Amino acid sequence: MKIDGKAWRTIWLEPDECSIGVIDQTLLPHRFTTRTLRSCSEAAEAIYTMVVRGAPLIGVTGAYGLMLALQVDPSDAALEAAFAQLNATRPTAVNLRWALERVRDRVAPLPPGERAEAAKAEAALIADEDVAMCEAIGEHGLAIFQRLAAERPPERQGEPFNVLTHCNAGWLATVDWGTALAPIYKAHRAGLNIHVWVDETRPRNQGASLTAYELGREGVPHTVIVDNAGGHLMQHGQVDAVIVGTDRTTRRGDVCNKIGTYLKALAAHDNGVPFYVALPASTIDWQLDDGLAEIPIEARSAQEVTHIQGLGPDGSIASVQLTPDGSAGFNPAFDVTPARLVTALITERGVVEASEAGLRRLYTDA
Amino acid sequence: MKIDGKAWRTIWLEPDECSIGVIDQTLLPHRFTTRTLRSCSEAAEAIYTMVVRGAPLIGVTGAYGLMLALQVDPSDAALEAAFAQLNATRPTAVNLRWALERVRDRVAPLPPGERAEAAKAEAALIADEDVAMCEAIGEHGLAIFQRLAAERPPERQGEPFNVLTHCNAGWLATVDWGTALAPIYKAHRAGLNIHVWVDETRPRNQGASLTAYELGREGVPHTVIVDNAGGHLMQHGQVDAVIVGTDRTTRRGDVCNKIGTYLKALAAHDNGVPFYVALPASTIDWQLDDGLAEIPIEARSAQEVTHIQGLGPDGSIASVQLTPDGSAGFNPAFDVTPARLVTALITERGVVEASEAGLRRLYTDA
Repeated sequence: MKIDGKAWRTIWLEPDECSIGVIDQTLLPHRFTTRTLRSCSEAAEAIYTMVVRGAPLIGVTGAYGLMLALQVDPSDAALEAAFAQLNATRPTAVNLRWALERVRDRVAPLPPGERAEAAKAEAALIADEDVAMCEAIGEHGLAIFQRLAAERPPERQGEPFNVLTHCNAGWLATVDWGTALAPIYKAHRAGLNIHVWVDETRPRNQGASLTAYELGREGVPHTVIVDNAGGHLMQHGQVDAVIVGTDRTTRRGDVCNKIGTYLKALAAHDNGVPFYVALPASTIDWQLDDGLAEIPIEARSAQEVTHIQGLGPDGSIASVQLTPDGSAGFNPAFDVTPARLVTALITERGVVEASEAGLRRLYTDA
Repeated sequence: MKIDGKAWRTIWLEPDECSIGVIDQTLLPHRFTTRTLRSCSEAAEAIYTMVVRGAPLIGVTGAYGLMLALQVDPSDAALEAAFAQLNATRPTAVNLRWALERVRDRVAPLPPGERAEAAKAEAALIADEDVAMCEAIGEHGLAIFQRLAAERPPERQGEPFNVLTHCNAGWLATVDWGTALAPIYKAHRAGLNIHVWVDETRPRNQGASLTAYELGREGVPHTVIVDNAGGHLMQHGQVDAVIVGTDRTTRRGDVCNKIGTYLKALAAHDNGVPFYVALPASTIDWQLDDGLAEIPIEARSAQEVTHIQGLGPDGSIASVQLTPDGSAGFNPAFDVTPARLVTALITERGVVEASEAGLRRLYTDA
């Protein structure tokens, strides 16, 4: 998507063909800078420190991380060590393991001398597939938004179609287009009068920083709200649909996404607002049934709760302390929204109810 | 309650008997300072800028604001002008109007020369009554916490009794004790092994700053969480009860409290966690029936969403920008929790179900 008129992806092979370029998302929305990743450790560090984030982008970064490792040492031992190092960076997202396994399975049967090149090709393929999947999600979601907008009563037809989203499941979370934001971009380009309520998404504020940044650069009308406000907006008819991404989806349709998603799903359910989850097949964990009981939830540093980063009055990016000295913080990064609260899943293959039957109908090959 | 071992109230008559002292709550938890209010305009400014906040404390500050006005000009016209000025500072809380009307009704029949002194006495009476009401709320809530703690299964008896609260309905929001936090202080002093989950409460972070500060100074174990986290904690059995305050309560028990309260009530309901609202009678608006339709919701400055204040690395209190330039914000300050989601109301007269029948049983004189 576009930044200052130029089209970008979030990750690319540098011209030297042996290092990887990424956008440093820790400095957005205040600074746009890129970083070059030259080793597996740098890739792992970029994932862990959230220079790159978002389940699909993490997966692609992991895949390229294996390439970087194999360029130095293509042995079985090095492959396994790199796999373990990258897989340990973020425990909740399933795409990471999926992408790592896909590259490993592709390269392991090959002679060591061919592995790095094969990993590069496979990582590039994963990236291109991700773009195609996201665009397909966008088309399926667009059809839903157009239908919902058309079904509004005549007196509301002239108003913006209001979509609420939580966290950032936009193009910055993927390679391009995004998952939850893809239908929004498609709708905006198709001429639908769309407006987005952007949950700021504490503690890391991916909504206030990344989603607002993305939407602003593409010219999509949007308003940032605190995470507390969405229920009130839904009570007052100011939200026509909610759409979010997911880091892991169980086979029966439970959705593990950024902490706070569950609260918005409850509010949507309580107010008859449709609640959609956009996902590529790679986030489905066919091994898992009950998301609440089975998905491990990453607890991140309490400092993300006690401190926050922003742009200071002097133009520098600064972190300020929010809590009194001595007060502890607890920081679970994700929660699980039970399938019963999800109106439908929007996948690259189409739209289905959040259930094992629904998912199996689309993914007969899974 | 105590700060560094010394007992404080949030508002007091200064020794000169004609000005008012308050704690400046905009600098907490990083700086403890007091301010002297010498005129009605200074009192109104203190309310509007949230130097003082919390429905009961706003009411007492308004009452003393009338005293400050009448000291300068005790005429009918000055009384009405001061009433209007103070009443316009915060549109949602009902205590403010209630306290202003009480002082006006008390002084209006008097000769002008007696009005300032009578306003002082009435304001002091409102303050003392507030302390007594909050302490009574504390006793009633304590009984609930003790019962709930005792009813836990044997294997959980040794664990802390976990209470989640939103915003600050502590002693800093009242004159002393607090409303929602009064039962917590009583329980802590009674030896119950209590632990408090403190919602940070964006956008103004009264939880992370004021509630955490209060609890820390009194030695009550607590952990700050982002507003997004409470639902996840409830899903995993880590919350035994939720207790919040209210700025306005309708006669049928709908509760208007800090934005985000409704989301926690939904999560409590979905997980079978009891949800209590602590309130003095002065927050009940007997004129109102349907809180969602009838309570005006204050929209505050978008800058409270786009920026946040904290303690900078150099020890100064600084505001940082969270959003990209050009992204709008919207900032509704309160939401309404329907009575159906409230387990019980804890008032100074006892505990009742959130309904008109329940409230009428306690307040036969209303």
